[in-house]
Amino acid sequence: MEIVRTPSTLQTMCTQLRRAGSVGLVPTMGALHAGHIELVRAARRQNDITVVSIFVNPTQFGPTEDLSRYPRQLQRDCEMLEQEGVQVVFAPEADAMYPAGSSTWVEVEGVSSRLCGASRPGHFRGVATVVLKLFNLVVPDRAYFGQKDAAQVAVLRRMVTDLNLPLQMVVCPIVRDHDGFALSSRNAYLSAEERHQALSLSRALKAMAAAWGDGVIAAARLIEIGGKVLAETPGVRLDYLEAVDAHTLLPVEEAGPGTLFAVAAWVGSTRLIDNAWIGPGSRVHL
Amino acid sequence: MEIVRTPSTLQTMCTQLRRAGSVGLVPTMGALHAGHIELVRAARRQNDITVVSIFVNPTQFGPTEDLSRYPRQLQRDCEMLEQEGVQVVFAPEADAMYPAGSSTWVEVEGVSSRLCGASRPGHFRGVATVVLKLFNLVVPDRAYFGQKDAAQVAVLRRMVTDLNLPLQMVVCPIVRDHDGFALSSRNAYLSAEERHQALSLSRALKAMAAAWGDGVIAAARLIEIGGKVLAETPGVRLDYLEAVDAHTLLPVEEAGPGTLFAVAAWVGSTRLIDNAWIGPGSRVHL
Repeated sequence: MEIVRTPSTLQTMCTQLRRAGSVGLVPTMGALHAGHIELVRAARRQNDITVVSIFVNPTQFGPTEDLSRYPRQLQRDCEMLEQEGVQVVFAPEADAMYPAGSSTWVEVEGVSSRLCGASRPGHFRGVATVVLKLFNLVVPDRAYFGQKDAAQVAVLRRMVTDLNLPLQMVVCPIVRDHDGFALSSRNAYLSAEERHQALSLSRALKAMAAAWGDGVIAAARLIEIGGKVLAETPGVRLDYLEAVDAHTLLPVEEAGPGTLFAVAAWVGSTRLIDNAWIGPGSRVHL
Repeated sequence: MEIVRTPSTLQTMCTQLRRAGSVGLVPTMGALHAGHIELVRAARRQNDITVVSIFVNPTQFGPTEDLSRYPRQLQRDCEMLEQEGVQVVFAPEADAMYPAGSSTWVEVEGVSSRLCGASRPGHFRGVATVVLKLFNLVVPDRAYFGQKDAAQVAVLRRMVTDLNLPLQMVVCPIVRDHDGFALSSRNAYLSAEERHQALSLSRALKAMAAAWGDGVIAAARLIEIGGKVLAETPGVRLDYLEAVDAHTLLPVEEAGPGTLFAVAAWVGSTRLIDNAWIGPGSRVHL
């Protein structure tokens, strides 16, 4: 496994590798958990070469957010990726990705201002820009993202379509603990008590999905049902709980196939997100 | 020569063509003149396959600008390109390039707000976005642009660097009529009298270059010298005349290698631009 530190080296290497076969890219911020590993395994199955990037992208963090304390464990991450048979890890420094004078940004209007984009202004501009840069460095056939960041998926799908990017986006399901808690690198911030409180996010979504399965389709009623679960949990401060179209992220009146239930909440000083969506054939993905 | 009308067809075709050899892309708005043909010939010399796009991109025109009357002559353009041995012409409709729901934009901050960007807000956002889309459709090894649009060149160079685009930008010199008048598709708007008045743009630049050659380096003085030529010409209304760094487009105090003299002016209802720059070895490119 090659660990590459500079964009130019990666670009040259990937130009060579593409001649040997298909390339899958898994962009991450490191602190890898089983959710990331599922992305890596999907990339390994579908491509000849798998490139994983590990970059805590400063431009997607707001000034009061957790950029400095975001977990960093490059050596452990690399050991995990080597075990998975990954061929290339790209772990650049911030100033290699954003040299002095950098001033180009990708704005995905509309969708970027909803859900997490409403709570984190500029977040998706940073995400879209860094992901486009990674795409241009690697020129992958396929790129892998987790459904857990549903708003990010919507923004990047829009970008890939609008910019005519020659690649396929592959979105993998949320990976959850035995009790339903969605895996996240930020779960490392939680105390045992907070972990217990935070379980209310997935419980709220489960309640909404169950009610929908029982025939409740009014979005307002479903949000009320999920909101009650969260409101009854001490220590949880709601950011948003919405029923939206999974592609546009615009609120829906009635839930049905294509609807995303999305939640974000603060538990102590940690902001967590989770979601469920109704797929084709009315199958609930939670 | 293939004439392609839809982005998806172009993308599929270019994926095939790239396997056969190197690809050069010449993005144009059509109404081709000898300046465009120089770009095409450079592309033909340096690549196995040459793709020329002809697209009057609506997103780079302001609401009061000349989008509707911009000259369109696709058949004549195609005849010229066939004669030059071009393999692929891409001539899409606007709604194929910007389907309903499109909302992704490339913003190249700083440089996009200077020179023409100051006079035409949003212009370079449209330019950068459509050029990036063309890059993603064709995935060229090299892309060709004319030095006449010096601010556009600065914006696109910045974009290519910042987004780590895997291609080489090739910039070709301005092509001028026998009397020094820079070729432009918009010259078709000019009456004989306006054509005569408009010659003052290149005369102003020539006067600045001559003064610089004679040892005048103060930008303010050079601008005064060029400005006098324009002010003395009836029918010419100055938009800007500046001495700037060719990469950042920021004003310089003293002219030297890397300095761009850039002018924009209205002649009747037609807005024209021209420029000269001082290259390595103090050679003046006019």
